[in-house]
Amino acid sequence: MKANRPKRDVHPDLARERLKCNFNIEEVTNIIDGGKDKTLERKKIEDIALNNGACLDEIPDECLSIKERYENAIRKSCIYSNIVRNEMLEITGMENFESPVLRRTADAFFKDISPFMLHLGMFVPTLIGQSTPEQMAEWLPKALDMKIIGAYAQTELGHGTFIRGLETTATYDPDKEEFVLHSPTITSYKWWAGGLGKTANHCVVMAQLYTQGECHGTHLFIVQIRDLDTHMPLPGIKVGEIGPRMGFSSADNGFLGFNSFRIPRQNMLMKHAKVEKDGCYVKSAKHGKLTYGTMVFIRVTLVSEMSFNLSKAATIAIRYSAVRRQTELRPNEPEPQILDYPTQQHKLFICIATAHAFQLTSKWLWDTFQAVMADVRKGNVDALPELHALSSCLKAVSTSDALSHIEQCRFACGGHGYMLSSNLPFIYSFVAATRTYEGDYTVLLLQTARFLVKAWEQAESGNNVTPTVAYLNRTANTKRVVWDNTHEGIIQSFQAIAAGKIGQCVRSIRDRIKSGMDYEDAWLMTTVQLVAAAEAHCRAVLVNTYWNEMIRLTKSSSANVKTVMHQLAVLYLMYWALEKTGDLLKYSSVSKQDLDDLQRRYEELLAALRPNAVSLVDAFDLRDEILHSSLGSYDGCVYERLMEEAQKSPLNAEPVNPSFHKYIKPLMQGKL
Amino acid sequence: MKANRPKRDVHPDLARERLKCNFNIEEVTNIIDGGKDKTLERKKIEDIALNNGACLDEIPDECLSIKERYENAIRKSCIYSNIVRNEMLEITGMENFESPVLRRTADAFFKDISPFMLHLGMFVPTLIGQSTPEQMAEWLPKALDMKIIGAYAQTELGHGTFIRGLETTATYDPDKEEFVLHSPTITSYKWWAGGLGKTANHCVVMAQLYTQGECHGTHLFIVQIRDLDTHMPLPGIKVGEIGPRMGFSSADNGFLGFNSFRIPRQNMLMKHAKVEKDGCYVKSAKHGKLTYGTMVFIRVTLVSEMSFNLSKAATIAIRYSAVRRQTELRPNEPEPQILDYPTQQHKLFICIATAHAFQLTSKWLWDTFQAVMADVRKGNVDALPELHALSSCLKAVSTSDALSHIEQCRFACGGHGYMLSSNLPFIYSFVAATRTYEGDYTVLLLQTARFLVKAWEQAESGNNVTPTVAYLNRTANTKRVVWDNTHEGIIQSFQAIAAGKIGQCVRSIRDRIKSGMDYEDAWLMTTVQLVAAAEAHCRAVLVNTYWNEMIRLTKSSSANVKTVMHQLAVLYLMYWALEKTGDLLKYSSVSKQDLDDLQRRYEELLAALRPNAVSLVDAFDLRDEILHSSLGSYDGCVYERLMEEAQKSPLNAEPVNPSFHKYIKPLMQGKL
Repeated sequence: MKANRPKRDVHPDLARERLKCNFNIEEVTNIIDGGKDKTLERKKIEDIALNNGACLDEIPDECLSIKERYENAIRKSCIYSNIVRNEMLEITGMENFESPVLRRTADAFFKDISPFMLHLGMFVPTLIGQSTPEQMAEWLPKALDMKIIGAYAQTELGHGTFIRGLETTATYDPDKEEFVLHSPTITSYKWWAGGLGKTANHCVVMAQLYTQGECHGTHLFIVQIRDLDTHMPLPGIKVGEIGPRMGFSSADNGFLGFNSFRIPRQNMLMKHAKVEKDGCYVKSAKHGKLTYGTMVFIRVTLVSEMSFNLSKAATIAIRYSAVRRQTELRPNEPEPQILDYPTQQHKLFICIATAHAFQLTSKWLWDTFQAVMADVRKGNVDALPELHALSSCLKAVSTSDALSHIEQCRFACGGHGYMLSSNLPFIYSFVAATRTYEGDYTVLLLQTARFLVKAWEQAESGNNVTPTVAYLNRTANTKRVVWDNTHEGIIQSFQAIAAGKIGQCVRSIRDRIKSGMDYEDAWLMTTVQLVAAAEAHCRAVLVNTYWNEMIRLTKSSSANVKTVMHQLAVLYLMYWALEKTGDLLKYSSVSKQDLDDLQRRYEELLAALRPNAVSLVDAFDLRDEILHSSLGSYDGCVYERLMEEAQKSPLNAEPVNPSFHKYIKPLMQGKL
Repeated sequence: MKANRPKRDVHPDLARERLKCNFNIEEVTNIIDGGKDKTLERKKIEDIALNNGACLDEIPDECLSIKERYENAIRKSCIYSNIVRNEMLEITGMENFESPVLRRTADAFFKDISPFMLHLGMFVPTLIGQSTPEQMAEWLPKALDMKIIGAYAQTELGHGTFIRGLETTATYDPDKEEFVLHSPTITSYKWWAGGLGKTANHCVVMAQLYTQGECHGTHLFIVQIRDLDTHMPLPGIKVGEIGPRMGFSSADNGFLGFNSFRIPRQNMLMKHAKVEKDGCYVKSAKHGKLTYGTMVFIRVTLVSEMSFNLSKAATIAIRYSAVRRQTELRPNEPEPQILDYPTQQHKLFICIATAHAFQLTSKWLWDTFQAVMADVRKGNVDALPELHALSSCLKAVSTSDALSHIEQCRFACGGHGYMLSSNLPFIYSFVAATRTYEGDYTVLLLQTARFLVKAWEQAESGNNVTPTVAYLNRTANTKRVVWDNTHEGIIQSFQAIAAGKIGQCVRSIRDRIKSGMDYEDAWLMTTVQLVAAAEAHCRAVLVNTYWNEMIRLTKSSSANVKTVMHQLAVLYLMYWALEKTGDLLKYSSVSKQDLDDLQRRYEELLAALRPNAVSLVDAFDLRDEILHSSLGSYDGCVYERLMEEAQKSPLNAEPVNPSFHKYIKPLMQGKL
């Protein structure tokens, strides 16, 4: 067990790396956490959650059967819930049950996520967002006190992205003042909801509301699905686990079907619309706009989540690369640390920079979100479309970029990156799922594209557009932006690329309409380009936001911290410029020679960052319990840990597996 | 169980797709198989291996614990070995024990691979390649008859790519005429070898040979590691399983350490070098050149393996996309099949084309390999460096491309792509590992780059170079190739890109040497560019080879088959041209307008291929047992199969999991 493991000396290669550090690590940690006080609070909470060893497993989860894994997850979830309820929320305040620090400590307990996670992550927030005061009073205290355990069931076997296509029905019966929930087809079964399979006894269910013979679209209902005492599914409920998945192996994703299952009228969540006793449907004017908020909120937190996951992967890969040695560069010299190879630096340093870019952008997006929601509460919804477009593309691009960088971290660790004990495969699987859930990459970028095409048309006709697309006013009617080899020049070039691509989409659509297509078909035929245009817009936002926030947040930093933060941001700009040379050549004045120079400067910057690499990941301040990686621990004892983890495999508990006598020996003797 | 499952009607959407097919599917299948006779033989073998249902599991492997999974794998391996030995090799001939058809049927038994796979895949070939006739006579019949089961142990915990860095020692003791095998450090433990953990009783071990006080570098030794009767590890042997991995969960990867373990002198594989009784070391002149061949051979087969895996992923994703419906395109119209979205076609059709490109290139590479090896046997080794460079970059790029396309297939299936029952996560994990083993992506491309830089220098000084780099003679001294919007133009542009990038690398290295660096440092600093240059060379080879082979193999095809094969190859060229616009703008005369036109033509080509999409994957002719995918089966009954698979989860065997009473209920009652 890690907790009882003798504290090891730090590997000499890592110790030497740390001596090379030329900046104040704690200052950088504070920037990432959002302030010195935030760092202190985080550390205090981590001490409470992790210091007693409750998070550690004797046998790695991945050696267990699906059933044992579930049972172990429930055991740990209950321990963890008690720690959260009794100790951690004392510090953060009850209202901060969604604090990222709680999220972070949960990672030490669950390599994937807890079956309870969506209880606090979706069930409770939905109650808060969608209940009337009476409903809130009835359900919320029970939920917060874990007297009931909830799930959130929206997606169906045959329906995901297109909410209007959901098939589950909730038909109001005024005689009994009840709703009848029903699953008319196999495709209407609820599918995927976390915690729903074997854990939750309650569930928020999205269903098509029918009353007085009319369908009013999807609404939310709170449904008890299991007996609180026996945990047996209630009659009319068919519930179970959906089977093994890539990632999220302990999330208890479930399916749910209704056979004319009845719930009281009061179980419809009625904050924004209600059904009267007689079946009369009454809708609130604000309905659509505020539910919008929750969706955007989740996307905002995902950008920060991506930063966190990238920081984990980068820490693992960079510490390993400082310890791993490979190949002679010159005859009879020792094998160098693989971190000395520029190809390795090229894969890894961008991960550090991107973790910073996403964290700073997420914080900025959060502030923007708060401001917009304050306006919305005052009745001003003007900024919502922009916020929606922004959060959509940032969710899409941050999850996609994080995923490919994490994959590169795994590749950078060679074979050992495939060992589950490295944790890299888990981080990959987890992030892979975020690329799809809460809005698929392609779908979200096409939503942003709708906004961009409208904005382009406004700019074209000389009107001013909203701040994140203000570059369209500058560039919509000019040719190519001038490349001047500065960071401002790169940022402006990315804006020119975005503007150029949006403009090209508009032209494609218009050409297709001219040739006889209707708008829908012309749009459809142009979607490959529209996705690329929305991605380009997102990159323009990212480079600009990261740069500005980096400058703002390092204003009072020490000189060396300023330098290294500046280097990371420049690396980020150069990396993406070199990834997008085709776009730069199309939409800026950059020359072939400029690009060759940029490549050379990029290679020099990698070398400049090299001495600080280990300290930059140390600044993410990820405890070994949270990383749980044989390759990434602070002490760098990579090979000892790999061997220790191997010893934990139940296959190694006996020298000869029984299958030898049962199968192999008869085969060898030709007797099978 | 699938075998007893009632045969279902084909989903109407898939049936309708098949009616749209305008070409002869069987003709295309024959092209992929390499001839009509090959198709017939494959089908016959598949019938033998798969028709009796021996490959099917009651409970999916992924629900089992690591120990249960291993035992199930051994059970199936023994059944499968018997089928191979007693029936399948009767058809293929004993000498074809590495036939891709066997590989293909094995996939129905093992979602990953069998613990026995490297017995036939590495142990036996090494015996054949490295033994003296006497050694062959002693070991080979036992191995082929499964009287002994072998593994191949080369990689160590601390050493992979750099063979000379291996630490395991074999020290000759002339008194006893024995070698003493020893593992001096933890990093010297053998690590990764498939089948080594709990299964093999013999092992080929690579170790540093010491005799008469001198080290002669790495050599191979055959070592018995377990007792044949009890299967207990022999004294002095420490062997076990390395713990869970991403992919290859049933491969029984193992570790192995020696504590002064003695083996007879005759156990050194002495075909190419030997140690005499007195300890005298005698090396054969041919040593290096012929071992080369095995390595190249494995890389050649991996290109075909990538085609096979891509064809599986494409079949799954395209059939699912024909059945899945999502979002209204126009108010009140039914939700379209997601295959109708160009964004989906963009992700998927390239997978079909790439599967063809890799299959045809692999066949061509195989023929080239055979010719070169025939020359080598005659003493002419001139073509080996080119073959090595070629197989290195094709292994790197084919595994890398396959991986990212397979990932796109998974993304294209939305949430259901993450269900393990879809099989897409297994295919991804399997292919991910191939990107690293047998030569990591970056390492291999840098090997190709060494060859390219030399070739460039030869071409620069006016000498003729070997066929695959002949383009350097044409382009090394010209400026930009003329873009003419034809397929020949695209192929030539890819050659110009490769030449341009290699040239730029040479200039970078020379500039760095001028500024005071030595050659090694200048090379090292340029490696990021060198990797890109080698990739560019590989793309030039791929587009050229695929095109030429497609033309050659469809000479006698029917008109419609010609057309659709032509469309796929054009799609491949256009796709990569659009991915590499930066390079095209730098190294060809292409204009912004040309690229916009190309984009439009690409979008039109997607639409043209759409009606044949399902039939094109049908032509891969993958039986359901081989695909084992809930999303990809021939009948398209996606939702029924997902639900059926979920029911197989042992978690669903009981309505209430015991952890409710043990943990959840006490938590709910505040009593935990």
